[in-house]
Amino acid sequence: MTVDVKKAAKLLKENDNIIILSHQNPDGDTLGSGFALFYALKKMGKKVRHECENEVPKKFLFLSDGIKNDSFSDGFTVTVDVADIKLLGDGLKEKYEGKIDLAIDHHISHREFSPLLLLEDRAAACEIVFSVIKELGVPIDKRIADCLYVGIATDTGCFRYTNTTAHTHLCASELIELGADNGEINRLMFETKTRTYAKLEKLALSSLEMYFDDKCALMCVTAEMFRLSGSDETECDGISALPRQIEGVLVGVTVREKAENEYKISVRTNEPIDACEICAKLGGGGHARASGCTVNGTLDEVKRIILKTVKESL
Amino acid sequence: MTVDVKKAAKLLKENDNIIILSHQNPDGDTLGSGFALFYALKKMGKKVRHECENEVPKKFLFLSDGIKNDSFSDGFTVTVDVADIKLLGDGLKEKYEGKIDLAIDHHISHREFSPLLLLEDRAAACEIVFSVIKELGVPIDKRIADCLYVGIATDTGCFRYTNTTAHTHLCASELIELGADNGEINRLMFETKTRTYAKLEKLALSSLEMYFDDKCALMCVTAEMFRLSGSDETECDGISALPRQIEGVLVGVTVREKAENEYKISVRTNEPIDACEICAKLGGGGHARASGCTVNGTLDEVKRIILKTVKESL
Repeated sequence: MTVDVKKAAKLLKENDNIIILSHQNPDGDTLGSGFALFYALKKMGKKVRHECENEVPKKFLFLSDGIKNDSFSDGFTVTVDVADIKLLGDGLKEKYEGKIDLAIDHHISHREFSPLLLLEDRAAACEIVFSVIKELGVPIDKRIADCLYVGIATDTGCFRYTNTTAHTHLCASELIELGADNGEINRLMFETKTRTYAKLEKLALSSLEMYFDDKCALMCVTAEMFRLSGSDETECDGISALPRQIEGVLVGVTVREKAENEYKISVRTNEPIDACEICAKLGGGGHARASGCTVNGTLDEVKRIILKTVKESL
Repeated sequence: MTVDVKKAAKLLKENDNIIILSHQNPDGDTLGSGFALFYALKKMGKKVRHECENEVPKKFLFLSDGIKNDSFSDGFTVTVDVADIKLLGDGLKEKYEGKIDLAIDHHISHREFSPLLLLEDRAAACEIVFSVIKELGVPIDKRIADCLYVGIATDTGCFRYTNTTAHTHLCASELIELGADNGEINRLMFETKTRTYAKLEKLALSSLEMYFDDKCALMCVTAEMFRLSGSDETECDGISALPRQIEGVLVGVTVREKAENEYKISVRTNEPIDACEICAKLGGGGHARASGCTVNGTLDEVKRIILKTVKESL
């Protein structure tokens, strides 16, 4: 059953023990919305726990310094920014499958896994959680504003992507008024590359290949590149944006080695190509301009499969 | 005399022939605010002329396709985003010095050159011109909204820089509601690298070296790299930003071959290192965070000279 912001807030108000779940390989939006909700509910005197399959990446640690999980067994369980129960990760999925009460999400490709769903087509889950927190009536302090701003800024490439709407900017405006440190956050999120990431980017760029009259750019990130650079998956968010940045490219593909013969594929497109359609054919999904899927095989096989699928869309 | 938005709009309403001046080497803000004002005043049935010392750069041409200057001799003359009369360029300065009625500007460093000044401390002149156009009562169409959005987005590095305020986002929100094509504009302004630039960047990154406990990153752009990539100096603006982006780097140096045994050096720093101080020692100058100088010698000699100078500052 779908619920609106009012109903979601009412349910949160009615429950005293609340568990918040973020998706695996967490990004700024799932953590920003999860932490913001955590801080807001704590202010209401509730017992709250935030869980995620993976550790908080270093760049988001400044948001989590106030997260101290309460101990309780069962509670009203909410996912934030989780489009599919699989995306919780194996551990959390096993622990919580069938026990999730409410999903708050912004992916129109959301695959229902909870009795209650608050789904809005927004650039970031943080835009929706911002509305929920306002509805809860909690005063929004700088820390909550920072969390929400991080989610919005990271999910929109700092307001650059086409998912950015008038509503997104209105949220940003309000969050800055509420104390969000936008300048410093943007420096940390967008202006700073770790040394390991800078090395990885250099290696990955050297693998760049052009296909289909230069309408498709394909880049690989291999286990060997991770080894040589000292980087890892947590730093890969930005790298997927690179192939599409080249003039004239309609489809930018990044093929990332996850395990032996298992590759995570990120697809970023320009209009009119639908990235979600491409990835759906390979069992994945996401948004119209940015989607992903996982394909098994050798690197050459995987490249052949994704290129064939891209070609059908061009 | 300083005037407010109401007074500036009143003056524009009272005059039938209006001349709008942008600064030389025009950027998105001086053109966006100038063109937006042009279109708004034309809608009011006025005769309008827009002038700039230089041609409109290719990337902004989509904003100027409706600019057809009316012919008249004298008119009420307004500058937009011009902080100093020198910045009009020699030709326009000679033509208009002493004849400018109103300056609309957002630089707090503004040096007065007109009897009337509308000055607000905003991220972009477009934020102020947006208020003026609203005050004129002209319906704001998609074209005007696009112009104003371009100025705001380009002057804030797409809302990344610390000059971005709640007001900036509020303007962006309203402009998107009014039809500004933010996704496409940002793609053109920020997401597109020419193929030649992408190649140059790849080559330059492969030359990256770290010095002084990784506090200094140095990158070279050689004539050979220009030749291999097909790129040239006009595309080098972005490249100088790369070395400083690496985590922990306080001084990012780019050494660019200008002629045989002549190298242009760009220095970008993070606090507390003064880039201007470093470059001044080598006969150059600029700002505290971004400066430049020219050094003669072989590439190895030039690198040795700049590294020695950097070391003194660290």
